[in-house]
Amino acid sequence: MRQPTIALLTDFGLADFFVASMKGTILSINPFAKIVDLSHDVRSFDIRVGGFLLFGCYRFFPAETIFLAVVDPRVGSARRLLLAETERYFFIAPDNGILAQALENESIKSLRELRNEKFFLTSERTTFEGRDRMAPAAAWLSLGIPLDEFGPELNDYQKLGFPKPVFGETEAAGVVVFQDKFGNLVTNLPGHLVDIFREKHASRPVVLVAGKQEISHFRKTYAAAQKGEIFAIAGSIGSLEIALREGDASKKLNLKPGDEVRIIVKTKT
Amino acid sequence: MRQPTIALLTDFGLADFFVASMKGTILSINPFAKIVDLSHDVRSFDIRVGGFLLFGCYRFFPAETIFLAVVDPRVGSARRLLLAETERYFFIAPDNGILAQALENESIKSLRELRNEKFFLTSERTTFEGRDRMAPAAAWLSLGIPLDEFGPELNDYQKLGFPKPVFGETEAAGVVVFQDKFGNLVTNLPGHLVDIFREKHASRPVVLVAGKQEISHFRKTYAAAQKGEIFAIAGSIGSLEIALREGDASKKLNLKPGDEVRIIVKTKT
Amino acid sequence: MRQPTIALLTDFGLADFFVASMKGTILSINPFAKIVDLSHDVRSFDIRVGGFLLFGCYRFFPAETIFLAVVDPRVGSARRLLLAETERYFFIAPDNGILAQALENESIKSLRELRNEKFFLTSERTTFEGRDRMAPAAAWLSLGIPLDEFGPELNDYQKLGFPKPVFGETEAAGVVVFQDKFGNLVTNLPGHLVDIFREKHASRPVVLVAGKQEISHFRKTYAAAQKGEIFAIAGSIGSLEIALREGDASKKLNLKPGDEVRIIVKTKT
Repeated sequence: MRQPTIALLTDFGLADFFVASMKGTILSINPFAKIVDLSHDVRSFDIRVGGFLLFGCYRFFPAETIFLAVVDPRVGSARRLLLAETERYFFIAPDNGILAQALENESIKSLRELRNEKFFLTSERTTFEGRDRMAPAAAWLSLGIPLDEFGPELNDYQKLGFPKPVFGETEAAGVVVFQDKFGNLVTNLPGHLVDIFREKHASRPVVLVAGKQEISHFRKTYAAAQKGEIFAIAGSIGSLEIALREGDASKKLNLKPGDEVRIIVKTKT
Repeated sequence: MRQPTIALLTDFGLADFFVASMKGTILSINPFAKIVDLSHDVRSFDIRVGGFLLFGCYRFFPAETIFLAVVDPRVGSARRLLLAETERYFFIAPDNGILAQALENESIKSLRELRNEKFFLTSERTTFEGRDRMAPAAAWLSLGIPLDEFGPELNDYQKLGFPKPVFGETEAAGVVVFQDKFGNLVTNLPGHLVDIFREKHASRPVVLVAGKQEISHFRKTYAAAQKGEIFAIAGSIGSLEIALREGDASKKLNLKPGDEVRIIVKTKT
Repeated sequence: MRQPTIALLTDFGLADFFVASMKGTILSINPFAKIVDLSHDVRSFDIRVGGFLLFGCYRFFPAETIFLAVVDPRVGSARRLLLAETERYFFIAPDNGILAQALENESIKSLRELRNEKFFLTSERTTFEGRDRMAPAAAWLSLGIPLDEFGPELNDYQKLGFPKPVFGETEAAGVVVFQDKFGNLVTNLPGHLVDIFREKHASRPVVLVAGKQEISHFRKTYAAAQKGEIFAIAGSIGSLEIALREGDASKKLNLKPGDEVRIIVKTKT
């Protein structure tokens, strides 16, 4: 018996009945669906950080997983709902940019507008299309309904993300894209960039400038840092992270998603 | 292979081992049970709000779902445990009113006291009957044990809910029954009531009075409201909700479950 | 179709993508694994309390459950990863003491170091071995791979727990080992100890001394206590708990895990 995985990402929290309503709806259509919570604690309406959470873990899921991402401040309005198929996965979400970071990383096979009311709980526009449109569509998709039945093809989707890093000869500029539970600050700078700069400019010191802090410790593991030390590390998704050993770097440095960070090769002193 | 759904609602939180103990107990008896979290973040001992959460989403679950609702301040005392079968569902809970809002909405086929110790982990009264009595009973029920084996029939169960709305010719009074994660205030007034009043009293203005605020904006979608606007909307379960566009209405209006709200047809001015 | 249970305990929280990454990894290897959340809200790096959470509920899970416990401040360093088989269960965790409280309670059949890179996502040391080493190993184990393929046998593992209680003729000393969501303080003193002391010293009063409070109420159920009463009770895992009826005992008494509590048989007055 196939047990297709449907992974849910929302900003609904777990205290209310929103997520449970979506799960009930899915199981009513496909009782064999395997529902996995990606996260429901995206800050309310924060599409960009929601998109980053999806980006950060979707690739670890089984092939054919259906990702359902509902951070949807414009719910009920005429914004489109997307259904994307890539080489390995399916994605369903409002067309507001939440899929952008994941889709840019994937090869899109088919991009459609979710429109066929046959796969919705109701043909009316409601205030809860996560439950009434997107969850049932995901459940029907998990039963093997062909993509072309869900709606017409699209040529484009909403892009939204963090500014791309800029790379120079002796400097690179990126931004903080996420702050995790431990207070680690994930950036969009590649994790191996410091090594590259060091190799190129052998005898010159390389630092990471984050807010008012100049960070010169680069570690391979959290455990290698001293207690109380601020350091940079290639994190779990391959990008540079700023951490404070057994402490909260985001509080210490007063940095948050969107803030700039720079790697600088200093002149010898 | 059948995979019956067991949906859990508690005030235990997810940080401790209470919910996990119940899940382990269920899976020890029926490894094929499909356990879904409804919510575990009901405010401690708040039976009425717990009952509303159940009411707000149970109907979206597959037929034959077993709902296990454990908000149980009198655990271990002689209060009864209920097992109810309705047209589509099963419910297990302490007889303290938590099932009232859902059961009033259902047609009850059988109502029993959960008493047969054969289906409990232990015959002793314990401080954790969610794990020791209700979870195992739910698991045995999911295996197809007939209802009459669980205990004797009951004629009645504890009612507990919010005061029913009162409807007049030009006025209706209800209460706030829930405050969701976004700060939206769900009332027990029907969502279409404003339209009915407007139709009946064509040229007169209709307002919603909530605390000290008079609300005159009624929207079809959150997105139709202006930023910072307080408005009313027919919410996701059909009742009137008070919302603040991308903000927290409950904080702004200082309202909470139990507080009165009124729809008033004003005299023409 | 077998659906082996894998139970996850971490300090990762549910807001980020860490737990989802582990679940995706597991399902990529064994799509039939039944993943249950034990808790993800262990206080960051608090190995001892994490170990207590595991201890408090593992025995309610089905035989052959695989427990994966990742509170891992030294991730990426050379600390070992453990794989333990007991009479009924499997445990995977860093060798930092998190398994100690559960394993002391079990009969160990096999204890091994998780080392075979064949069962890891990558042979490199990373900052997220929960995802890259322990989750895939758990998934492979759930598919029936024999234990000896995962790595060499070990003779010992890291012990870490709370000081054992000390029992005297008219006195016993223990510690608070956990504070639950309701503020109840779980101790490591046996729940029936007060009864034993009372039987032995029939006419003398028995009290529990916790911080500056002398507790003389011992109850069988929470409901038996008066509102506002501080009392002791044999809790859901058999040990003595300190509770405040519908209130927060830990706040009221200003006690936390590690703090001493004593049972004293007083001289007659």
